Order: sequence, then C-alpha cells, then structure tokens
Amino acid sequence: MALVVQKYGGSSVADPAKIKRVAQRIAARVRTGDRVTAVVSAMGDTTDNLIELARGVSERPSAREMDVLMHTGEIVSAALMTMALHELGLEAISLTGQQAGIRTDAVYRRARIAGIDTTRLESELSAGRVVIVAGFQGVSEDLEVTTFGRGGSDTTAVALAAALHSDRCEIYTDVAGVYSADPRICPKARPLRDIGYEEMLELATTGAVVMHPRAVEVGALYGVEILVASTFDESAPGTVIHGETTMEQTNKVRGIAHQMQVGKVTVRAVPDRPGIAAQLFEPLAAANVSVDTIVQNASVEGLTDLTFTVAKDDIDHALEVVRNTLPALGATQVVTDSELGTVSIVGTGMASAPGYAAQMFRTLFDHGINIELISTSDIRITCLVRREQVPDAVRALHDTFALDQT
Amino acid sequence: MALVVQKYGGSSVADPAKIKRVAQRIAARVRTGDRVTAVVSAMGDTTDNLIELARGVSERPSAREMDVLMHTGEIVSAALMTMALHELGLEAISLTGQQAGIRTDAVYRRARIAGIDTTRLESELSAGRVVIVAGFQGVSEDLEVTTFGRGGSDTTAVALAAALHSDRCEIYTDVAGVYSADPRICPKARPLRDIGYEEMLELATTGAVVMHPRAVEVGALYGVEILVASTFDESAPGTVIHGETTMEQTNKVRGIAHQMQVGKVTVRAVPDRPGIAAQLFEPLAAANVSVDTIVQNASVEGLTDLTFTVAKDDIDHALEVVRNTLPALGATQVVTDSELGTVSIVGTGMASAPGYAAQMFRTLFDHGINIELISTSDIRITCLVRREQVPDAVRALHDTFALDQT
Repeated sequence: MALVVQKYGGSSVADPAKIKRVAQRIAARVRTGDRVTAVVSAMGDTTDNLIELARGVSERPSAREMDVLMHTGEIVSAALMTMALHELGLEAISLTGQQAGIRTDAVYRRARIAGIDTTRLESELSAGRVVIVAGFQGVSEDLEVTTFGRGGSDTTAVALAAALHSDRCEIYTDVAGVYSADPRICPKARPLRDIGYEEMLELATTGAVVMHPRAVEVGALYGVEILVASTFDESAPGTVIHGETTMEQTNKVRGIAHQMQVGKVTVRAVPDRPGIAAQLFEPLAAANVSVDTIVQNASVEGLTDLTFTVAKDDIDHALEVVRNTLPALGATQVVTDSELGTVSIVGTGMASAPGYAAQMFRTLFDHGINIELISTSDIRITCLVRREQVPDAVRALHDTFALDQT
Repeated sequence: MALVVQKYGGSSVADPAKIKRVAQRIAARVRTGDRVTAVVSAMGDTTDNLIELARGVSERPSAREMDVLMHTGEIVSAALMTMALHELGLEAISLTGQQAGIRTDAVYRRARIAGIDTTRLESELSAGRVVIVAGFQGVSEDLEVTTFGRGGSDTTAVALAAALHSDRCEIYTDVAGVYSADPRICPKARPLRDIGYEEMLELATTGAVVMHPRAVEVGALYGVEILVASTFDESAPGTVIHGETTMEQTNKVRGIAHQMQVGKVTVRAVPDRPGIAAQLFEPLAAANVSVDTIVQNASVEGLTDLTFTVAKDDIDHALEVVRNTLPALGATQVVTDSELGTVSIVGTGMASAPGYAAQMFRTLFDHGINIELISTSDIRITCLVRREQVPDAVRALHDTFALDQT
C-alpha cells in the first residue's frame, strides 16, 4: 500500500464528463490498495473567465482581491471531483488549501509555502477517504487567502507529497510527459523516460511549460520523485523527474528548449568603470522588468557595450527605463531588437565536455543561423537567434544530438 | 456618522456593469460619512450554474460538498465588488464568511449562525475601509464550510447588523420594497412604507419571497430595523421592517399573500383515538416531508378525517409514506389533490377583530371561490382554494380591504 499524491490540471477537469473520467482513474488506483490524495486545478477556462470579470470592474485589480477571486476556481473543481468519487461509491472529501493546512507567506499572487500542517489530511486518509485538495492556494498567518501564481497546483501537489512523506507525486496533464523538444515544431521529439531535477528546471525556465519550475525545485529539495504523464492516455509511461543518474543520461544532451518571444536591449559605448552594471540594472529591477541574460563585451578604448534580453512584451518598458538612465551612465545610444528567440541544449555534465558547445555552434552555422548572443550554465547552452529561425534551429539540434534515439 | 450594513442580491451584482453601479452607490453613501459593511450574493446565474455542474457529476451530491461548491459564488462577488470600490478610490476589503467571523452549527445547506466574532470586521471598519462580506456562508467549529440555504445572504446581513450594533440593515433588491400583494397578479398592489416583523414573517412564509424569513427572525430577535428597497431606483423609499406600531397599521390587514403550488392529502375515516396524529406525522417528519397546515375534523361515529397540506412537489413522496402508515392507523382510504393554492390576509391585531375573517370568506364566496380548508394564526387567515382561482382571490381581497389606499 503506497501513499500517493496526484495532480490533475485544468484541461483534465475541464467539464463534468472529464471530471467523471478522472474520478474513474482515481477509483481504479484506490482499488489497488493505494491511499490517494489528488490536487486539482480550476476547470479549463475558469481562470481566464475570472480574470475577465476582474478586468470588467477594474483596470488594476489589487493582488489581494485577485487571490480571493482566483482561489475559488480550484475549490469548485475539488468539490465536483469529490462528488464524482462519491457517485462511484468511494469515501472522499474535498479540502480547501486552508483546510489542507497549507500555510504561506503573505505575498499575494506568488505566495510561497511556509509550511504544511498535515493533521487534518492525515486523519482523513486514515479514515480511508480519498482527499481532493484545491490546488494553487494557501492562507497566510492572518488567514488571508494567497495563491501561488499560474501553474501553482503543481507546487501544491509536490509540497503535499513532501509533507506526507509520500512515495511519489504524479502530475497528470494533457501531454504524454516531458519531451526531448517541443513536438509542435520538432516532429521527431519523443517523451523522455526520465530526467534530472536540474535538467527539468532548465527546460522549464527556457521554454518547456509542461511543469511549473517551483514545483520541480520543491521536488529537488525534498527528494520527491515526480511522474509527469497523460491523464487520459494510460498507455503512455510518462516521464519520471528525479535526482538519480540513469543509463539514459550518458547521452549528455537530454533536450532542446526554446523561447519565441525574446527582445534584446543594447546600450552602446558605455564608459567602462566600476558600478555601471548596477547603475543600469537597479532601475530595471525597481521597475519590475525581469531581465534574462546579461552580456558585457570586452572594453575597447575604455568603452563597452552592455546587452540584455527581456520578454518581448517588456521591451518598451525596459527601453523607457534605460533611456532615463543613459545620462547617469554617460552613454547616449541604446538599440533594441524585438524579433528574437532562444534555443538551448540542456543536459547534465555538458560543462565537463566542451565539445557540445562547438557541436551546437557548428550545427547552427551549417543551417545558416546567426548567433546573436551566447549564455551558458553548468547544464545548458543558450543561443539567441532570429525568431523565424528558432524552429529550424530546434530541429537541427535535435538531429545533431540524436535525441530521436532512445 | 452611522454604522450601516447593506446587502445586495444576485440581480444587483449580475454583471461587471451592475457591480460598478452598486459600487457607485456604496461610494456615495461613504461620502456622507457613514461606515459601510456590504453583504453580497452570488452574481445572477452563478448559483444555478454551480448546481448544474454538480448535477453533471452526481445525482445526489453530498450536502457538505454542495456547500463547498456553492459558497464560492459569493466570494467571487465580494472580490469583484471590492475591486470596483478600489477603482473609485475607496479603501475597501473583501471578507469571506470565515474571515468575517461568522460561526455556524455543522448543518450543511441550512446552517444556523452560532455567533459572530466581529474583531476583524471592526478593525477593518476602524481603519476606514468599506468591508464587503461574502453572504450566505460561515464556518463550523471544525472549520467546515457551511451555507444558509437560498436567500441566506439576507440572514448574513441582518446578523452582522445585530453583531455590530448597527443602526440598521438595508436589503437592496430588484423590487421597490414589500408590496401589499404580488404586483405580478395584482396590478393595484403598492409598496408598504413599513411593516412589523411578525407581519413580514407571515408574508414571507406564505408567499412573498422578497425577504428571507430567517433574516426577519434575526431582525426581530435583536431589534434590527430592516429597510427593503430597490438597488437601482433610488427614488423609491422602500419598506421598513420594524417592531413598532405605526399609524398606517391601524388598517389591520396589511397584505395579501399567496402560494400557487400546494397539495392536499386527506386520510379518511381514521379511528379517533389518542396518538393517531403522532402515528401519521412522525413517519412524514422522518421522511423529511415538510407539512404545512394540518386540520382534523370533528369525529363522527368514532371516525375522523385528517387533512394536511404539503408543497405540490412533495405530494407523491407524502402519499407513499402515508400509504405505509394506513394499517397502523386502522384507516384504508387516502385521497390527494395537487391542484391547489393558498391565499392569506396578514395583519397585526386581526385576532381581536373577528370581522376580518367573515369579510374574507364573504369576498371569496362573492367571487365564486370555494374554500377547501381554513387555517389561522394571530395575525393571518389562510384559505386553501383551487389553484386557478388564486389570482382572482388575491385581487378581490386586495379590493375588499382597500389595500390600494395609503
């Protein structure tokens, strides 16, 4: 008898028919003798509908009230799933984030879990009940409703698995697992059987949206093995995210990630003296512009170029902030390019095998793809390229590193 | 500076445009210097939509899960109203039933308020904030979500007014107040300027649905004056419900109430011995059949007829229960009639002036309306009549007692 925590995303509970199918799936699992806690997201379009209602009354709704509004979507799903389980003759109960003991800090819209009091949850499980938990939410010390941001139900599930010392956390979604590349642009992409936490984090933050990065972080921190698999295609094995190195990982490039909506800002001819980077990036941080990659070129005649990338939608805002900073920097020229994308190769141990970088650059060159900027981490190499060349780049790299072969 | 509790019903907050209009109304009130707490119901069709979702997954959803599901509707309204107030530059905050300190018993679907801890509410009001409370809900001692049943937001509002020692409670709705009869069937009906608690209770329980009876009970218990008025027609003065006798009440018939969906069950020739009523009505209560009026005729040759009325929808269920009881009663025949309605005259002090009953019966006779059953209370006389004659009866009685004249 295992203690398992599952999570079903919004597309898996989009309507009563789908909720009933998921209930069947949970019931089958309970009949194997496992004790099941299932976290549910809001039904399909609910989140978007609630956001639209908020926009109907306010241009800038307060973060606190948005959390109060949004957290109702997951509660609706939890109650309906519980009713569907009752209909199958199972003992089941829904718990809101608060009832499930999920305590957070008081940062609305992107609260972090401070701790989980599992007393109620464990007593319901001990009583033989399936527990359905409303995802994406908790309460602060002052009993204020908080949410974890989009995709936060993943975090709820992995954190509950950690708190319950559960054997593993199963994330059910509308894809068959974590792919070697985005199958929509790379037809040869295949689902990975397993992947390491850090690799998954790099994939998640550089484009593959199948899994919320914070959930992966929690998994890594508490050593919770995470299965990502299809809700309705039970024949697909899915991908296991864990901390161990497996045979499959001896091919060190595990996946190709990409981003399509990237912009670049370059400040030209900045006098190269200590403190200029701080002078540029502090105002950007204060203006809440999220900067991705930063590159400072070598200084020529005491002048240097500073380049950074941001999400395409942020580029106008970034430009405005930088323009105000130019006099203090002693620079006069700033140029932007909003028609860019990134392509990354991800895999543990690439840092110790520099040949991978050369192979990547050669592949892009062979396909006539110019590299505008390079950044690397221990387990990732990212190239900034023209947006329209991103799909070609993904397919070419997928071939080069033979990711279609298991 | 007065402390006022308002309540806005589902039709008053049915869409973002209406929510913004109500916010304007609240803002205008705040500018007069009053401190406002406003209770909101779920938006328009939300409650029905949630019920439909529940039916989509379960034929008999559990009461606990229905409460978890349903209470989200009021929370959505509360968050949206608060955002709309922020947009007008007001300090405002939403509170769920739990955050507003509303503690109930653990009876799902029709919980009763056990007490209200106003600490949080008073501190928000003291900080100069408008407080928007999600109606219709509370939490039990075990932090289980409970609801008060349809119309329960009225009860939230009046109970909060009592707990806050507020000057009065204002119930805003889509009608101009409490009418002397249902204006849909009696064109001469007019809004009453004021009415007593008990009269209002009789009107509410015998047909006029403008106000939730439990809310009136709470008002009577704590002496909270209740204004019922139109949300969007500010020129209409509305109706004040209170405990004092006013000049207007010297005309002792205040209103005509009616019900359209009434059924009657008669058990014929029951041996007249002690205990037969208990033998009949205990099984009905156990089967959760709500019995309205009960009449036992005088005994003839040791046999009596027992007649009771139920809601039309309950008549099949009632008949089934009674049939099983017949052998124990020593009776053999039961007859039902589901094509009935009631018409009532309501007014304080009628009991001490028996002429009213005679006037009522004469009026019905003059209009060719046969009376199938009569029941009375101190302030009400009710006649059971054929359903199709109910509208005629209401109009005739309205004329007889000159209710169109102020």
